[in-house]
Amino acid sequence: MSPAFGCMTVGIVHSPFKEKFGIPRQPGLVPQAAGILELLPPYNCPESVSGLADYSHIWIQFWFHQVEQGAWQPRVRPPRLGGNRRVGVFASRSPFRPNPIGLSVVKLNEVRCEGGAVTLAISGIDILDGTPVLDIKPYVSYADSIPDARSGFAPTAPDEALRVVFSAHAERQIQSRGDLPKLRELIVSLLTTDPRPAYVEDGRKERVYGIHLYDFDLRWRVENREALVLELLLR
Amino acid sequence: MSPAFGCMTVGIVHSPFKEKFGIPRQPGLVPQAAGILELLPPYNCPESVSGLADYSHIWIQFWFHQVEQGAWQPRVRPPRLGGNRRVGVFASRSPFRPNPIGLSVVKLNEVRCEGGAVTLAISGIDILDGTPVLDIKPYVSYADSIPDARSGFAPTAPDEALRVVFSAHAERQIQSRGDLPKLRELIVSLLTTDPRPAYVEDGRKERVYGIHLYDFDLRWRVENREALVLELLLR
Repeated sequence: MSPAFGCMTVGIVHSPFKEKFGIPRQPGLVPQAAGILELLPPYNCPESVSGLADYSHIWIQFWFHQVEQGAWQPRVRPPRLGGNRRVGVFASRSPFRPNPIGLSVVKLNEVRCEGGAVTLAISGIDILDGTPVLDIKPYVSYADSIPDARSGFAPTAPDEALRVVFSAHAERQIQSRGDLPKLRELIVSLLTTDPRPAYVEDGRKERVYGIHLYDFDLRWRVENREALVLELLLR
Repeated sequence: MSPAFGCMTVGIVHSPFKEKFGIPRQPGLVPQAAGILELLPPYNCPESVSGLADYSHIWIQFWFHQVEQGAWQPRVRPPRLGGNRRVGVFASRSPFRPNPIGLSVVKLNEVRCEGGAVTLAISGIDILDGTPVLDIKPYVSYADSIPDARSGFAPTAPDEALRVVFSAHAERQIQSRGDLPKLRELIVSLLTTDPRPAYVEDGRKERVYGIHLYDFDLRWRVENREALVLELLLR
């Protein structure tokens, strides 16, 4: 079947998250996760974002560009269910969808129009670096916010499952990164909900995990419900 | 420029709203506005909606199929601003967007899988009849609901601007439509926020307006902040 509708790329997200592993599983879970949405020509005129700064939050509709379209299955295994229970693809926020379109509400910190560029400073993101953006919409609280909605298998935010501690080496490395403010808080937020695949057994405590953030691999391991940050390995 | 991504139609919305005029300007404003989302092959298998009934609300991402793609302008005139102030297209929910993709949260009343058909009974809709659906996602309250978000030019739902009254003839017609329960409540909700174009002056009180709903034209006029429903004219 040929596609019914064609979408343009109106912008690109620049994000600390350079690979899928370790990305927060919903927006807003990691407030320190900050990025830039850069509008592309011909959408990058100041007029197109006029009035947007009056909104504290925006919707980003984006394309899961690292997902092969057509690779969807009717049922998926959400990490939230331990990876061993399946639900319908339309009852999940999985990227493996008939149309791999993502939907995230993020905090809008600043709208910048300078030197021909139009960029939005955003945070609370759960979006991969380089993600193509299809649309930006203001978050309209009276319509979009339904605090008492019944939310199936994910009624609340994931628990803070792990205590996060740092090696002395990692602490020194973080302090030397004046270019990345709030890096320590970002790492704590990322690891506290335990980003490991759900099927990992606690017995494999020797294993060192890595997440590609910015220009380094964050390396850590888990022992006794503690995530120990070992080092930031420059790539 | 050629489109970067192609989208499939996964379903179709069957709605009381047969034309753009009169459609609620956001979802949820008219709880009585009920419709059916019908999944299309090959997406219409019961597995794809397994677990969805555990959610009270869903996101529908859809294509504004009556909008010509490419007809967008950097700034739009939202009806909420009286139609005479302009804001950036990305600061509005206007259908005239670079990618005419709509986003509505609606109430999910029932998931029906029978006779090879998979349909969702939905309400609070602001979607035109025949609208192609690109994606369905569960509403996840902990991530999607931000009650205290600052919402620019539309911080609250539109006022109930008009009192709605019915002619004796219209009352009798409504009572004869046992096939359309809650029709009276639907009409009250639709007219109370005054769907007339913002630039209409109160002086034109003689004018009779019509909205194509279901199989009839709802005909009414406005006088002294009252919407008087005249008749339901079968088409």
